[in-house]
Amino acid sequence: MIGYPNRKKQKNQILCNNHAGRGMSLEDDINTSNQYYRDFNRGLIYKKPTPIQVVKVDYPKRSCVKIKEAYYKTPSTTDYNGVYRGKYVDFEAKETKNKTSFPLVNIHAHQIKHLQHVLSHGGIGFFIFRFSSWNTTYLIDASYIINYYVSQEKKSIPYAYIQTHGILIKEGLSPRLHYLDAVDQLYFEEVTSHGTKK
Amino acid sequence: MIGYPNRKKQKNQILCNNHAGRGMSLEDDINTSNQYYRDFNRGLIYKKPTPIQVVKVDYPKRSCVKIKEAYYKTPSTTDYNGVYRGKYVDFEAKETKNKTSFPLVNIHAHQIKHLQHVLSHGGIGFFIFRFSSWNTTYLIDASYIINYYVSQEKKSIPYAYIQTHGILIKEGLSPRLHYLDAVDQLYFEEVTSHGTKK
Repeated sequence: MIGYPNRKKQKNQILCNNHAGRGMSLEDDINTSNQYYRDFNRGLIYKKPTPIQVVKVDYPKRSCVKIKEAYYKTPSTTDYNGVYRGKYVDFEAKETKNKTSFPLVNIHAHQIKHLQHVLSHGGIGFFIFRFSSWNTTYLIDASYIINYYVSQEKKSIPYAYIQTHGILIKEGLSPRLHYLDAVDQLYFEEVTSHGTKK
Repeated sequence: MIGYPNRKKQKNQILCNNHAGRGMSLEDDINTSNQYYRDFNRGLIYKKPTPIQVVKVDYPKRSCVKIKEAYYKTPSTTDYNGVYRGKYVDFEAKETKNKTSFPLVNIHAHQIKHLQHVLSHGGIGFFIFRFSSWNTTYLIDASYIINYYVSQEKKSIPYAYIQTHGILIKEGLSPRLHYLDAVDQLYFEEVTSHGTKK
């Protein structure tokens, strides 16, 4: 229990190389889909607020705090979590313009580590990858990406690998991304080998 | 799907009446306990970052965003969630100096609503209440507090009610609050009536 080096490091790690804007459209799609799923009581999944390091505050009114200096921090976990069909669900969403593979540089070590822990505690963990050039979005179990990441032999995950092991997420108007259908298919249907659904 | 009035309202709801400092010691105790539980792979529970409404930003360096004006927002959910023994866990922690009861004014409608949804989706939801005058901290299933809150006949929850239906959390050095022991007792031990533990 001495020191908690990781925590301290993260606490002071201010996020430069700001990628605001990158992947916003995928983020928006997931947020509106989550809102839809909440409205219809299908699932309870939220995006976590972006962590911000507050440096200076002011009190223009007695009861109101105005933040005058602050910086974005690197999140220590993934962007989304919640509960679905009684299970803990946790995922990260990423977008690329690449056509043939997803660059691993876009996935951070702390996200891999966090998802490893999610799986070890019996939660459902996955990635949502959008290939914007193909206008396709896939859901893939975290274990496939963790294996790829940990081996570190390749710097990117081939599109074909994600197509093979992932599930293509249906798109529509409401919800924008039917990603919980993919979750049903991947984690809740005891199908395939016996040919019968649960 | 028309309008999402709740979401829009919350999005613009800046948090005045700042209670920074109130309950910080309970928050610190829970945060260090969560860190301990993560270090020992017992559970994976985090405090969500405080949501902040960013109004103005500046770019002192090309790659670094400086936030120049921002405000705390009211969170739309509870403060803590994560996964424990395969289950989704979600809770709110509150502290009072009152000796005989916990004032309901400290619990917000959106927290009650969120915990109702957590329970309906099969998650584990509870409150942690600290009575600082007695130096006692209790864990109580959310359903007891929801019932009290929804009836609205009383403005506070008697200490005796929390003692009866809640579990006294053991305190120590590491972790500071053994609250997962209380979770084990409340949600994972099939004891009592048969006299045998799972």
